[in-house]
Amino acid sequence: MVTWPWKRDRAAPRTLKVRSRGDFGDVNRVDFEELAPSIDTFLGQAAYLQLGYFETLSELIAPTPELSHKESISRAAGAALFKHQQLVGVIRERGDDPLDVMLPFREPLDAFRRATHGARHLETMLSVHITAGMLDDFYLSLSASYGATGNRVAQILHADDDRQALVQLITDAIAADEQWRDLLSLWGRRLVGDTLLIARGALRPQTLDAAEEKRVEPVFTDLLGAHSRRMAAMGLDA
Amino acid sequence: MVTWPWKRDRAAPRTLKVRSRGDFGDVNRVDFEELAPSIDTFLGQAAYLQLGYFETLSELIAPTPELSHKESISRAAGAALFKHQQLVGVIRERGDDPLDVMLPFREPLDAFRRATHGARHLETMLSVHITAGMLDDFYLSLSASYGATGNRVAQILHADDDRQALVQLITDAIAADEQWRDLLSLWGRRLVGDTLLIARGALRPQTLDAAEEKRVEPVFTDLLGAHSRRMAAMGLDA
Repeated sequence: MVTWPWKRDRAAPRTLKVRSRGDFGDVNRVDFEELAPSIDTFLGQAAYLQLGYFETLSELIAPTPELSHKESISRAAGAALFKHQQLVGVIRERGDDPLDVMLPFREPLDAFRRATHGARHLETMLSVHITAGMLDDFYLSLSASYGATGNRVAQILHADDDRQALVQLITDAIAADEQWRDLLSLWGRRLVGDTLLIARGALRPQTLDAAEEKRVEPVFTDLLGAHSRRMAAMGLDA
Repeated sequence: MVTWPWKRDRAAPRTLKVRSRGDFGDVNRVDFEELAPSIDTFLGQAAYLQLGYFETLSELIAPTPELSHKESISRAAGAALFKHQQLVGVIRERGDDPLDVMLPFREPLDAFRRATHGARHLETMLSVHITAGMLDDFYLSLSASYGATGNRVAQILHADDDRQALVQLITDAIAADEQWRDLLSLWGRRLVGDTLLIARGALRPQTLDAAEEKRVEPVFTDLLGAHSRRMAAMGLDA
């Protein structure tokens, strides 16, 4: 568990809840509208992040020798691309140029993508599963702040991400060679800090007062909880 | 125009016609059933080819600096992946394992993909546009031999391939620097032989008698005609 700088009051009541992946009820309304970024920032980041997942996964396809693994990675890549394209569609319908809306986030999100790129393919697959898992949850929690457009985004992010096949590749590798478990646990822990910084950086005020921190804190606690469950499901220590 | 070894009688009446890209009427029934490969060969090759287009295009996304170009390539890659996934779905619905059905074609089609990989990104984009253009036409023409399954495949191959954005990138490059025209014309001509060999190799008999050649010839003539129109549309000499 990382120690999170703005996370002071761990006993704060949980008034905000982030959806967990396995929760198929209605999206919980997370009411932190004043902290939520402008809708352009929200849409631009969400769309560019999905493009990044697609790029990262796509790069793994060619060097992967097993056709069945290629298939699994392609499916996950395709799901990310489809989400990207749908989010681009939302931006376009609002009368904006998707490229203009995404460009401000290119540099930081490309840097994030590089930082979460593993030395081994399985690490990179884990990166996509873990970072996309946390950030999709985060953007889902933000989506309630944007009315009908937010609902559309929630539906888009909520669709099947086809990352379960990546999880299977990871657990198969661990089953075949136990050494992967420590390596990937370590890597998974490394990813958390960078990912939370991206989420934190998306919020409107760059410094939060005590009251604001209290409202944001449970969201991040929930993101970390969902992260731990995701790791545990693969037999990895969070 | 390449000289094609089994193309003897250029004056043969055209009884078979391949759809051209721009033709939105019904698929022309090309009646060369006895020459058509087994349905497994047909589906396995068609599915694996689309995966190959996806892989080739995906590899271009990361090294492409311009976000708008990334978008264009991503769209075309996504369209190929979607076709691949739909064809895999057809194979699965028939009760077969898509990997088993695709594996026999992995080696020759990977070799084809390597052979049509350009030294420059624009060449590789042209390769996908040209080879997928010809081979989609070819598989469309074969599809009439497989009843209801063939109709499904025709619908899948017929959907928008989103390659028009690649054409735009190519014509933009030529407009910006005339030297591209000769280079890409040359490259386009190089692609034809390899692509026709893949199409020819898909037919059931490896050697054709004179009567069979007469029936096949117009199909290949039409493929070449459609190829020339595709090149001309980009201002390239076929």
